[in-house]
Amino acid sequence: MSQKIKKIAVLTSGGDSPGMNAAIRSVVRTCAYHKISSVGVYRGYEGLIDGDFVELDARSVRGIINKGGTFLKSARSKRFMTKEGRKIAFDKLTKAGIDAIVLIGGDGTFTGGLVFNTEYGFPVMGIPGTIDNDIIGTDRTLGYDTALNTAVEAIDKIRDTAHSHDRLFFVEVMGRDVGHIALNAGIGAGAEEILIPEEDMGIDRLVESLERSKKSGKSSSIVVVAEGDKIGKSVFELKDYVDQNLEEYDVRVSVLGHMQRGGSPTCFDRVLASRMGVKAVESLLEGKSNYMVGTIHDKMELTPLERAIKGESKINKELIRVSDIMTT
Amino acid sequence: MSQKIKKIAVLTSGGDSPGMNAAIRSVVRTCAYHKISSVGVYRGYEGLIDGDFVELDARSVRGIINKGGTFLKSARSKRFMTKEGRKIAFDKLTKAGIDAIVLIGGDGTFTGGLVFNTEYGFPVMGIPGTIDNDIIGTDRTLGYDTALNTAVEAIDKIRDTAHSHDRLFFVEVMGRDVGHIALNAGIGAGAEEILIPEEDMGIDRLVESLERSKKSGKSSSIVVVAEGDKIGKSVFELKDYVDQNLEEYDVRVSVLGHMQRGGSPTCFDRVLASRMGVKAVESLLEGKSNYMVGTIHDKMELTPLERAIKGESKINKELIRVSDIMTT
Amino acid sequence: MSQKIKKIAVLTSGGDSPGMNAAIRSVVRTCAYHKISSVGVYRGYEGLIDGDFVELDARSVRGIINKGGTFLKSARSKRFMTKEGRKIAFDKLTKAGIDAIVLIGGDGTFTGGLVFNTEYGFPVMGIPGTIDNDIIGTDRTLGYDTALNTAVEAIDKIRDTAHSHDRLFFVEVMGRDVGHIALNAGIGAGAEEILIPEEDMGIDRLVESLERSKKSGKSSSIVVVAEGDKIGKSVFELKDYVDQNLEEYDVRVSVLGHMQRGGSPTCFDRVLASRMGVKAVESLLEGKSNYMVGTIHDKMELTPLERAIKGESKINKELIRVSDIMTT
Amino acid sequence: MSQKIKKIAVLTSGGDSPGMNAAIRSVVRTCAYHKISSVGVYRGYEGLIDGDFVELDARSVRGIINKGGTFLKSARSKRFMTKEGRKIAFDKLTKAGIDAIVLIGGDGTFTGGLVFNTEYGFPVMGIPGTIDNDIIGTDRTLGYDTALNTAVEAIDKIRDTAHSHDRLFFVEVMGRDVGHIALNAGIGAGAEEILIPEEDMGIDRLVESLERSKKSGKSSSIVVVAEGDKIGKSVFELKDYVDQNLEEYDVRVSVLGHMQRGGSPTCFDRVLASRMGVKAVESLLEGKSNYMVGTIHDKMELTPLERAIKGESKINKELIRVSDIMTT
Repeated sequence: MSQKIKKIAVLTSGGDSPGMNAAIRSVVRTCAYHKISSVGVYRGYEGLIDGDFVELDARSVRGIINKGGTFLKSARSKRFMTKEGRKIAFDKLTKAGIDAIVLIGGDGTFTGGLVFNTEYGFPVMGIPGTIDNDIIGTDRTLGYDTALNTAVEAIDKIRDTAHSHDRLFFVEVMGRDVGHIALNAGIGAGAEEILIPEEDMGIDRLVESLERSKKSGKSSSIVVVAEGDKIGKSVFELKDYVDQNLEEYDVRVSVLGHMQRGGSPTCFDRVLASRMGVKAVESLLEGKSNYMVGTIHDKMELTPLERAIKGESKINKELIRVSDIMTT
Repeated sequence: MSQKIKKIAVLTSGGDSPGMNAAIRSVVRTCAYHKISSVGVYRGYEGLIDGDFVELDARSVRGIINKGGTFLKSARSKRFMTKEGRKIAFDKLTKAGIDAIVLIGGDGTFTGGLVFNTEYGFPVMGIPGTIDNDIIGTDRTLGYDTALNTAVEAIDKIRDTAHSHDRLFFVEVMGRDVGHIALNAGIGAGAEEILIPEEDMGIDRLVESLERSKKSGKSSSIVVVAEGDKIGKSVFELKDYVDQNLEEYDVRVSVLGHMQRGGSPTCFDRVLASRMGVKAVESLLEGKSNYMVGTIHDKMELTPLERAIKGESKINKELIRVSDIMTT
Repeated sequence: MSQKIKKIAVLTSGGDSPGMNAAIRSVVRTCAYHKISSVGVYRGYEGLIDGDFVELDARSVRGIINKGGTFLKSARSKRFMTKEGRKIAFDKLTKAGIDAIVLIGGDGTFTGGLVFNTEYGFPVMGIPGTIDNDIIGTDRTLGYDTALNTAVEAIDKIRDTAHSHDRLFFVEVMGRDVGHIALNAGIGAGAEEILIPEEDMGIDRLVESLERSKKSGKSSSIVVVAEGDKIGKSVFELKDYVDQNLEEYDVRVSVLGHMQRGGSPTCFDRVLASRMGVKAVESLLEGKSNYMVGTIHDKMELTPLERAIKGESKINKELIRVSDIMTT
Repeated sequence: MSQKIKKIAVLTSGGDSPGMNAAIRSVVRTCAYHKISSVGVYRGYEGLIDGDFVELDARSVRGIINKGGTFLKSARSKRFMTKEGRKIAFDKLTKAGIDAIVLIGGDGTFTGGLVFNTEYGFPVMGIPGTIDNDIIGTDRTLGYDTALNTAVEAIDKIRDTAHSHDRLFFVEVMGRDVGHIALNAGIGAGAEEILIPEEDMGIDRLVESLERSKKSGKSSSIVVVAEGDKIGKSVFELKDYVDQNLEEYDVRVSVLGHMQRGGSPTCFDRVLASRMGVKAVESLLEGKSNYMVGTIHDKMELTPLERAIKGESKINKELIRVSDIMTT
């Protein structure tokens, strides 16, 4: 292992996701295991510029593995997008004797880290923390599994009332550009239709399908809609359209919203966070930089940050087919 | 016990609430215990008019005590509001040999039952099933305790992300005319402010309070808003107002919606449902009619349906004070 | 309000229960509201003797309302049972300028407080924190509602597998001298039999009942057993007895154990904790001492500690009858 | 697709696991999608011999995707281990016009199916349903993810009380021959030590480690123990040993038991069940037999039943290392 790295910083940036605390804990404990120091940075790149640091040791991350959110807090930083901002950040890091950073976040976080590394050669290592599962280089991003379960449990409750009243519900889940949450939570919740950005069903086909569904004896229905689905209508517009075109349905809307970002992480996300933290720190200690850690086919792998940023996560076509069959 | 009642029907009507299945089970098992027959009516008063009945015995209600919603389904019935509709319903009941009905629902359900009893002298007994806790004659309505926990668990998750990002969230919970859910879930979730229909805080006082809160070092905040709060603005309007008047806040909105109506009932609601079913059936067997069963000071009591309908549930002033103190 | 009390200490003692953190938070915030100081004592009476105190303000109890356990920790103290121990504790309190203590715990905790008050006239106020609901002077103790739900959710899962395999399960829940948890969780979980300390069913009647149950077509069964039920046999002995006498049953055992003490408190327990903390502090400020706060018929009331300790909580006979009817 | 298969049976056998109902639903709906019939067999091979069949269509599996257990029930069958038993089963299947069976279960289930196929050439296809994750040919067995979360949530609650009282808990989780649940749930719950069958820690090293842990300032500890760990002592014997050798610890035991088999499946298990059902039916329709479906590197794959039975699942060494680092 490299002799040069004696102190590692860790920060969380961008939208928070369940498991970020567990990942911070893992980074800190792996540092302790290798007898090097670790420092937490508050509010992502903002805290880097403000020098808002806290020394962390194995005991100071006790009891956080099961807590949602990130105790280091997260924020977007306009200042870090400027050369001046990054200069100040570099000075603060140098002054604090920090040799490398672990960045927990998504696309934007990694882009910032990459630019910073290009300018100052400062070692950075990424951990993909986002509920959207939209990052290349890892089969699952940190927090995605928890978000799926939060969505499914909420839709289970909605189905209780939908079924009792023979209603049709449009349920919006998170996922602006990608349909991973919608597709998986939709299958998991037994949704009758799933609208995702990757497939343009067309509203007329939706209406036809609902019509068929009604005739086949289904009295209630759940349609799961990704925020950014291709039909391009909000769940409220979908409701209006169906209200006008399928009078036999009593239509309601539910937007699950930000609760999908919070909550105690699942076992999977806690284990994933623990593995990612170990891999991130040990990769830095091996002298590596500009990578993102990820799990590919259940093994921990490194992907160049540049590729992780540019890549486009693809929806699993098999799942779309499974979804179609399940709604027979 | 009266020799006249040999067969009791049970129906669920109005908005569904967790515990309705447990109440149906209790009605059926209490009938079995007293060796009389029981019949389920589908879709509330609609099913009564359609003669949509199902014979139920102790075994047929197995495994439903922990299921949300109502397997008998619920519906609003315009036909039952007409003399003709009620005449048909009475004929259907007579033809099926049914001697009395247990009505599980709220205000509207009880009003229907009362009119029906006035016209035909048909014995009816009410069980207050609604998440709103807005019925006189019971300390807690069936489903209220579950809805509170659903709301609190959702707000716990929202707080994780609010806290991570130093955000202000307006969270809308159910309760059109009453603030019971908002007040209790707000205290339970540690909300910074709670807006309820019973108290007009005034939006300026809200803004002042949030301003003070920010200055006192609170970085994130949850404001729980009852659907029908007195400020008279939707959570989206509240967000806009604060966006314009308190720029230092990053404001988000979450409408918890219909998930509050579903889900597996809490232990309290399951036990309450069991007690209410026993009391309802045994009161009918004792020759009583036109009452609602309820729990008052932890004892099962009867309240005339007429009083239950007209009464107005009051918010607990002590709780408002507790809420004020907790947000010090 | 009394001018004399300027600083209040709070401690948790005895077996922990969900909601203790919420109660500490309430004590601290109520002190802040009344502009007096508050101090946390670690490890109950042990910390009192060791002077293990921490200054607390409104912000330092942030984010704990939904956390199980007690961050002040709890412990049994042999030293506090001695005159010498109490003398040291009194000196430590005096030295720290503390004027009164709020004691969160059960019987043993209150007995200690009463002796201490008798000897030193030091103002004490009790909050009943125990999952057993076995204290006179409050309709529900703090943590009881959460423990019920934990037990019911666990039994729901056990029923899934019991039903799939047509098995009989003996499930032991907490409650050494009282059957409140067993009776309520048993009804809530739809148990076929409930064995509690207050009623001696006799093992032969149990076997008869199970035999009847099997013949009536029930293929699986859950028997909920309170730790200290009157039959006087452990769940393992019950299993052996049934194995020998009812060969047609495939019998398993599950002891729910300590998980019943933990977990995030329910909305009810969080609100109850908040109310109790307010009442405890304000009663001290009114010059009262030697009382326990409690909720009686949904109002906050004071009960002399002496009565709370000596009283015996009684099982609700109506519930036993409801349980009998439900297992028809 | 093969023209020969017109009717497919599905059964669940062996220990039940969460997701079995979702898998049955998927088998039935995939049959409906391909316009062939499907039949449920009650109580595994027992029902096959008894001809205990039920016709199932797309609507009859509604509302079960989120239910624990198996509505077709499961049982061990001694009769199916005999030539005579299997002969009767074959006759019953033939008489009912059934052309193939989907077997949901583990090792024993597949062995039975293989023997049956050898004798009668009857097409069989396996779905690995067991919480133990101990089957070759699938990265995750059905129910494993749910069991992990059930275990972790229970240990979270136990930690609350362990931490409040500075106690050491030995928590036994399921896994007779394999440590997958113990290792993953242990990491997920932040356990201080994890004892699994695959690694013989030796009780003296455990005691040393606990001693070190105590000295390093950890006041409470969780040790997760797989049922069949190599130390070969039950959790109760472990407690006794530590009681005698580490007096400074207050030791308790919790056996999580059968609740780990039940409960509503996680999103992952529901999606996995849906995928497996599709793959199983479609593989049969393609004329394949004697395979088990599984997910390998997130793709649906077939593994010969013979290999699935004989193979030995291996513990992930990386996870053992992660666990060591996390407990620094």
